[in-house]
Amino acid sequence: MAEGDAQAAGGSAGLSRRGLIGLALSSGVVGLAAGGAAGVAGGAAVARAEQGRGHEEPYAFFGPHQAGITTPVQDHLHFASFDMMPRTSREDLISLLQDWSYAASRMTQGLEVSATGAVGGDAQTPPDDTGEAMDLAVNGLTITFGFGPGLFENEDGDRYGLAGQRPAGLQRLPAFLGDDLDPESSQGDLCIQACADDPQVAVHAIRNLSRIAFGRARLRWSQLGFGRTSRTTSAQATPRNLFGYKDGTANILSDDTEALDDHVWVGASDEPDWLRGGSYLVARKIAMLIETWDRVRLVEQNEIIGRDKGAGAPLSGGDEFTEPDFHSTAFDENSHVRLAHSSMNDGIRILRRGYNYVDGNSALGRLDAGLFFLSYQRDPAQFVTLQRHLSTDLMNEYIRHIGSGIWAVPPGAEASSYVGAPLFR
Amino acid sequence: MAEGDAQAAGGSAGLSRRGLIGLALSSGVVGLAAGGAAGVAGGAAVARAEQGRGHEEPYAFFGPHQAGITTPVQDHLHFASFDMMPRTSREDLISLLQDWSYAASRMTQGLEVSATGAVGGDAQTPPDDTGEAMDLAVNGLTITFGFGPGLFENEDGDRYGLAGQRPAGLQRLPAFLGDDLDPESSQGDLCIQACADDPQVAVHAIRNLSRIAFGRARLRWSQLGFGRTSRTTSAQATPRNLFGYKDGTANILSDDTEALDDHVWVGASDEPDWLRGGSYLVARKIAMLIETWDRVRLVEQNEIIGRDKGAGAPLSGGDEFTEPDFHSTAFDENSHVRLAHSSMNDGIRILRRGYNYVDGNSALGRLDAGLFFLSYQRDPAQFVTLQRHLSTDLMNEYIRHIGSGIWAVPPGAEASSYVGAPLFR
Ligand code: HEM
Ligand code: HEM
Repeated sequence: MAEGDAQAAGGSAGLSRRGLIGLALSSGVVGLAAGGAAGVAGGAAVARAEQGRGHEEPYAFFGPHQAGITTPVQDHLHFASFDMMPRTSREDLISLLQDWSYAASRMTQGLEVSATGAVGGDAQTPPDDTGEAMDLAVNGLTITFGFGPGLFENEDGDRYGLAGQRPAGLQRLPAFLGDDLDPESSQGDLCIQACADDPQVAVHAIRNLSRIAFGRARLRWSQLGFGRTSRTTSAQATPRNLFGYKDGTANILSDDTEALDDHVWVGASDEPDWLRGGSYLVARKIAMLIETWDRVRLVEQNEIIGRDKGAGAPLSGGDEFTEPDFHSTAFDENSHVRLAHSSMNDGIRILRRGYNYVDGNSALGRLDAGLFFLSYQRDPAQFVTLQRHLSTDLMNEYIRHIGSGIWAVPPGAEASSYVGAPLFR
Repeated sequence: MAEGDAQAAGGSAGLSRRGLIGLALSSGVVGLAAGGAAGVAGGAAVARAEQGRGHEEPYAFFGPHQAGITTPVQDHLHFASFDMMPRTSREDLISLLQDWSYAASRMTQGLEVSATGAVGGDAQTPPDDTGEAMDLAVNGLTITFGFGPGLFENEDGDRYGLAGQRPAGLQRLPAFLGDDLDPESSQGDLCIQACADDPQVAVHAIRNLSRIAFGRARLRWSQLGFGRTSRTTSAQATPRNLFGYKDGTANILSDDTEALDDHVWVGASDEPDWLRGGSYLVARKIAMLIETWDRVRLVEQNEIIGRDKGAGAPLSGGDEFTEPDFHSTAFDENSHVRLAHSSMNDGIRILRRGYNYVDGNSALGRLDAGLFFLSYQRDPAQFVTLQRHLSTDLMNEYIRHIGSGIWAVPPGAEASSYVGAPLFR
């Protein structure tokens, strides 16, 4: 139909413009440096961005770790999973990562995707930036890239010459009891997690990155989320998930560098070396049967979670931040926090960074809602162990895992380089 | 499957509790008054709500007009359309409107849906409030109710005894050229527009109202929206829609009481009298083919809209707020603003209050995104005339109308009464 034609017809002009950006980047014509975005921007673009930025400082894009993991969790998420297009080459993949990194390094600093911007360029060409975030502040935007198992080897063989670099842990997750996964919201060769305090800023990022991917990668599935269900700094208040409970109380926080090194960052002794300073991201789309949950008595809801709905204190007593005492008879053995707690899992912990979602409703008139669970860990085995242990979770009666994905999240890009560069050396 | 069973099994307890709320309201046991919400709330609920409310003042629920029309447009929308359940009676409809009004009068004041709240009640029963907004400020929540054509007469005849009260204009909208409507996101006997500056607050409102409707009305379809695409007060900056253009420049603003009386409020000389002080709401879910749009040259984008992408000035010159001069040759005759402008439509104006939406993506890897168009007008004919005039709009190549609905929006409830009460006198 007409959609496909239009894509073919208008595509080449766009691609060559973006090709130039990639070229500029790889040939060093455009210098990139952390915080040095002003150096690459046209005057008009800078003026507009600064006017919009307000008091909020952008997060650095370059650095040892990618932003968007320990960064204080923003209010909104647009998550996107991409597949590489058939017949793409190693060079296509490299140029895509370069172009994405370049665009991300600008957008996260409150700049438009290219120096010619949405209105500053040649009026006879399509604008480089789609424009809907033009007057908005940067809103704490972070853009985090991940590499799925399919990049390293797939039905087509080792198309990108990366099979030898594959992290041993980067395998599709095993099937778990009760899984009800929709392939249309699972997996993907590449993923992008865009987080911001304004959804339009996150959507703008995914839209423009998806556009830049033209001819090389295609959006496979995507998810909007709101109302962060975790906290990653002690300064953040604990939000509530759609079961009405505080979520994120026992999370790993950004100032706990020891826990981050032990449980989140791929370390100096881990393989492969290109992933050191990176992490593994697991995404699970978990539908919550909220109408059913809403008919459960308060005492039972508390038993299922293992915490008190009001204050979020463990059932063994105290306040939100009191450590649970699992010798107490207050807990059901299959309460969620008991099964998930590190003391019940050989010390395993993960960094959770999920969001609520509502995708309309079912034909039965029930809200199609739940938790878009995101966790970062040093080794996917951490998630697998926990999720297996949750097989007897009392909560399972009220949730369904309907989407799943796993990605290796490379370390942050060095200034003047791009995310994933060490993989291609 | 199990979903249906659970609904049947757990439903009755919930219903009887909610039945009590309705009873309390209709028998006057609980006194309702504008701004007097503290009088009806348990102490714990008040304390929690006030702690969360921050500096923001709630909008009054009771008054001559419903809130959510001229109220400064909030950042987020959860819109829901409901159908009455088969075999429901006039009394069911009345009790539903009473219960909804009571709950809305509380939630819009930052209180939980009932005085016993999410954790304050009897632990042996399900909480009255689902709890996820417990620590959040009121975030400017407004809840606006509308009555669809089906309430006044449908396949079952005049089930609610309202046929004689039907507003002549309240008819399903005619088919328009290019319509591609999905019945699953169209129409509905009742609608609720919940707007707030935090999506979790809007979602909480729809979820709880949907729960309260149990056995009487069922969610038919619902839509989340973000990034208001209009402004309703001169103090609000003009936001941008997903085409990257300022949207809401020429809207009717709340301080223009003359325009509101002429174009928005059903007036003293209009029929039926129960609707005076109310309005008509039209919703159109309009998909935007953004990937195609993004390949259009900037000059052409400007021609299609009739305004300049950067500043939002009309193509005839000036700044955003300069009146367009349609004698100028700068406009294409079929530019959107020219076709939509009052001077081209016998002076017709409408109050626009739409939102952007993104519902994931299509199998082709295109974002499933667009404008959830909402407009308020004194007479549905205003919308119909404009929409017909837009049949030659250059923009039509880039949009598809995929959902549609129309509702009569009654005036605001009087203190101690409920929305729609005059209809049942
Ligand atoms: C819809 C699904 C889920 C809901 C509603 C949920 C909810 C919660 C809640 C309310 C808490 C207590 C507060 C806190 O410490 O954050 C919690 C803790 C936790 N959850 Fe979940 N959770 C879900 C799924 C998962 C999954 C899939 C995992 C991992 C496989 C997981 C791992 C954890 C961990 C590790 C903790 C901390 C336990 C502790 O150390 O006390 N959760 N969750
Ligand atoms: C996706 C669909 C649409 C988009 C992207 C869109 C966008 C815009 C934009 C950018 C403007 C100029 C700024 C402003 O005055 O707000 C505008 C104006 C306007 N639009 Fe739309 N619009 C859409 C659909 C509609 C529909 C369905 C109607 C009514 C049937 C409508 C009625 C109007 C009116 C009355 C104006 C003000 C014209 C004036 O007085 O200058 N629009 N629209």
